[in-house]
Amino acid sequence: MTLHKAIKVVVITEIIISEQVCHTIESCGATGYTVVAAGGKGDRNVRTISDRASVVEEFRNIKIECIVKTHDTAQLILESVAEKWFRNYSGIAYLEEVEILRSDKF
Amino acid sequence: MTLHKAIKVVVITEIIISEQVCHTIESCGATGYTVVAAGGKGDRNVRTISDRASVVEEFRNIKIECIVKTHDTAQLILESVAEKWFRNYSGIAYLEEVEILRSDKF
Amino acid sequence: MTLHKAIKVVVITEIIISEQVCHTIESCGATGYTVVAAGGKGDRNVRTISDRASVVEEFRNIKIECIVKTHDTAQLILESVAEKWFRNYSGIAYLEEVEILRSDKF
Repeated sequence: MTLHKAIKVVVITEIIISEQVCHTIESCGATGYTVVAAGGKGDRNVRTISDRASVVEEFRNIKIECIVKTHDTAQLILESVAEKWFRNYSGIAYLEEVEILRSDKF
Repeated sequence: MTLHKAIKVVVITEIIISEQVCHTIESCGATGYTVVAAGGKGDRNVRTISDRASVVEEFRNIKIECIVKTHDTAQLILESVAEKWFRNYSGIAYLEEVEILRSDKF
Repeated sequence: MTLHKAIKVVVITEIIISEQVCHTIESCGATGYTVVAAGGKGDRNVRTISDRASVVEEFRNIKIECIVKTHDTAQLILESVAEKWFRNYSGIAYLEEVEILRSDKF
């Protein structure tokens, strides 16, 4: 089978705005996304991890990923999420190149 | 130390087939894998995330990652997983280029 | 907006040393990091995943990610973590190229 180039967009932000951020991502053209509970330490929130229980407890961030066909769509998602949400909530976002089997699914 | 090019394979699918998918991945030559609980919205399953509790509750997907030395092995894993599992279960899979310290471990 | 190249460092290791590994990462110049609970199978630890409950239970590993501006900093983190922690604890680490919106944040 042939592999196709695609772009993965990753957004890590506060869990309280996860639904709205997913809406922003979909409104830019993503057909789906994957979410993972996350913790961490960044600009605005400081969190430490002491043991296994607390790690799960302290996961108040969310990591949202989606794969899109074009770099333009990926950049639009990145810019829209940053403009709408990163002024008032902590968050980071980045793009990565990936290879997928079928390009029709995204 | 010298860095070596390697390929990361990522499979996101339904948690109920996680064991079987991991077996498929290993049978193609991967020597290990990492799993993370995931939620999301895609082709066949629609899920929303409302608050922190429900995010953890609704994580019925799994994200499986492994690193292999060659692009051929990575593509074999991708194709085998897609052929065996993505006809009857929802799932996506993709490759990413990575750099690792030691190539003997994978 | 202009996108900037950056490097993502990923460390997957045992949860019991997560705090110390995060300290090592920060001491090499990372300004933040994201953590995700993970399970898996590798060199030293064998774990299987049978159902949804056990997946969450068995997540005794942690996946730590950070983004840094230069490949040199990323490689320093990789080497420091490997030298300090991977002799006595299981773990893997790798780098990935990413694109970010603002380079001043990292």
